[in-house]
Amino acid sequence: MKFLVEQNELLGGLQIVQRAISSRSTLPILSGIYLSCEHNILRLRATDLEIGIECTIPVQSEAEGETVLPARYFVEIIKKLPNLPITIEKTDEGIIIIRYGSSEVQLNAFNPEEFPQLPQVEEIHTVTVNADLFINAIKQVSIAASHDISRPIFTGILLEFSDNNILKLVATDTYRLAYREIILPGTLVNNFSCIIPSRALGEIGKIFWSDDNQIEISFADNQVLFKVDSTILVSRLIEGQFPNYNQVIPKDYSSRIRVLTKDLLNSAERASLLARDEFKNRSNVIKLNISGNNLTVTSKSAEVGNLHEELPIYLEGEPAEIAFNARYLIDVLKVIDQEEIHLDLTGSLSPGIIRPAEDKHVLFLVLPIRI
Amino acid sequence: MKFLVEQNELLGGLQIVQRAISSRSTLPILSGIYLSCEHNILRLRATDLEIGIECTIPVQSEAEGETVLPARYFVEIIKKLPNLPITIEKTDEGIIIIRYGSSEVQLNAFNPEEFPQLPQVEEIHTVTVNADLFINAIKQVSIAASHDISRPIFTGILLEFSDNNILKLVATDTYRLAYREIILPGTLVNNFSCIIPSRALGEIGKIFWSDDNQIEISFADNQVLFKVDSTILVSRLIEGQFPNYNQVIPKDYSSRIRVLTKDLLNSAERASLLARDEFKNRSNVIKLNISGNNLTVTSKSAEVGNLHEELPIYLEGEPAEIAFNARYLIDVLKVIDQEEIHLDLTGSLSPGIIRPAEDKHVLFLVLPIRI
Repeated sequence: MKFLVEQNELLGGLQIVQRAISSRSTLPILSGIYLSCEHNILRLRATDLEIGIECTIPVQSEAEGETVLPARYFVEIIKKLPNLPITIEKTDEGIIIIRYGSSEVQLNAFNPEEFPQLPQVEEIHTVTVNADLFINAIKQVSIAASHDISRPIFTGILLEFSDNNILKLVATDTYRLAYREIILPGTLVNNFSCIIPSRALGEIGKIFWSDDNQIEISFADNQVLFKVDSTILVSRLIEGQFPNYNQVIPKDYSSRIRVLTKDLLNSAERASLLARDEFKNRSNVIKLNISGNNLTVTSKSAEVGNLHEELPIYLEGEPAEIAFNARYLIDVLKVIDQEEIHLDLTGSLSPGIIRPAEDKHVLFLVLPIRI
Repeated sequence: MKFLVEQNELLGGLQIVQRAISSRSTLPILSGIYLSCEHNILRLRATDLEIGIECTIPVQSEAEGETVLPARYFVEIIKKLPNLPITIEKTDEGIIIIRYGSSEVQLNAFNPEEFPQLPQVEEIHTVTVNADLFINAIKQVSIAASHDISRPIFTGILLEFSDNNILKLVATDTYRLAYREIILPGTLVNNFSCIIPSRALGEIGKIFWSDDNQIEISFADNQVLFKVDSTILVSRLIEGQFPNYNQVIPKDYSSRIRVLTKDLLNSAERASLLARDEFKNRSNVIKLNISGNNLTVTSKSAEVGNLHEELPIYLEGEPAEIAFNARYLIDVLKVIDQEEIHLDLTGSLSPGIIRPAEDKHVLFLVLPIRI
């Protein structure tokens, strides 16, 4: 293996595939990045066996071949080189020589034959979505996904395609739920759904973000493949039955308030400061009291003090009183980019529903805290 | 106590004095910020008993008084308020009410009588230095100060004033030494010297940084006071005898190389990546080999690989070979803002001396590693 590559092109590719490497991996070779060079194309690949990322970059190849280099050292070295052509060559002993100017680094490599292939995705469905739209939807929905790996279903995001060309994304950790629908161009042949690990979708946002990109998504029985140009991310799907989210979303409300998103966000953030240590298992409780055109936010912490804020609102329906975990409200309000929200309530024991006032395609459900 | 204050003015003052608070303090009241209000002036103060910072801000005072508020909560709350006037009032029970718009926060306070006074500084010497010059000197010299509190002398920076109006700053951790002299305006009456904790000088850089500031420094027997406008920082001095640094700085050299600062810095950083795990007690070793107009930098790590770089230099004197801890070279090269440096060597067992090629006022000494 021998090729000539520009430092910035190589670094760009390495920083993309490196995202698949997990620091918790126990197989040493998975801390490496696979390189294979053929016909002026360098293929880079990394995987933690749950997700795999691959991309290609143009090089001037002199000799074909493959290797696996320790990501931690290889990426750091390439990052610290000047933006000049670099020659990378594999010796007969399998050692990699990186040459720049009159200097060189020799790196010990792993055996490339031991590096796992990316799974073959026998696609059943393929759709194309605008990257900006899809990534923004992921960002909003993923706030409700759980990080508790003992219940895998809740660490994923449900993608539900239906024949009116609507893609619904749903996540829940059973304390809150986020729902977003986006309209796809073109016609879908079949209705289907799958659950994708939230982590894989998070990486999509990082490696494919650009207004102009179109992401091609191919679904197979237990895999999904995302592709933009020559970069692909493959992820396993999460098996199991996603809860029936339609059942838990109230269809009606007894109180609807309209409030400035930023007002409620800032108030919840301040209230959260004074709601830290009240009860061990009920920390971060803030109370909302709605009456007339006024929302009162209160919180207290026996040790530190208490907070009482008044926000102007528009109320439709009955006065109400409810308590939430401030963190859940803050998470929701941070991913709403509209000026005003609606908060719909049905008594103090039913979930609160938050949506941007002018957007019917997004909905957040937050369970109240019983006080 | 009752006063009206602008949010941004209060926050600015809090963020300055907060720097004196140590997270390791065991006295609860030292986690607080002292406030006293009198004649339209609010005085803020914090201390960890090693350093103390005080500043004043203009307010509209309605009633005099003092209190101590928990810094962590008070600063966070003020930071999250809109930039509007805030009223702060103390109730008869000693609780503090912070009012903004139609909202309020109540905070439990500490007893202000328990808050330590800043020590009175009975000044013996007073000098004035340009903030930019002084802070830049601290930044350069402090890289050589130790963090090992079991040998306090080496955690400080020596300030030595001599009658030709030169202020010399010196720090050493016994493996390396940094020296800088600055010329003071005006005439000093006496020669004297003292050792100031490196941490206190680091805070000076953060709270007084501005091109135009003149810092007034007053020295007493065991205290030093820094003052710009109404902001003061008081620190204790470190007692003891600073080592005779003149003895350890070689007066001559057998090899002098001139090299681009950036070239050597980048090379040392790359070499450091491959010098991580060679020997447990000799990690981070990089070798310099000087011959003709060429500097060869090498490093190796049995596990990862090795590096061999060639840099163009100008050599005056004999060829040489020496090894350094890469970290020490990198620390020095990062605080030199000139394009070229001189590295003076006298054999592989004597310290290396690094100075900016065109600046006689700065010098860094680094002990070699015996290989």
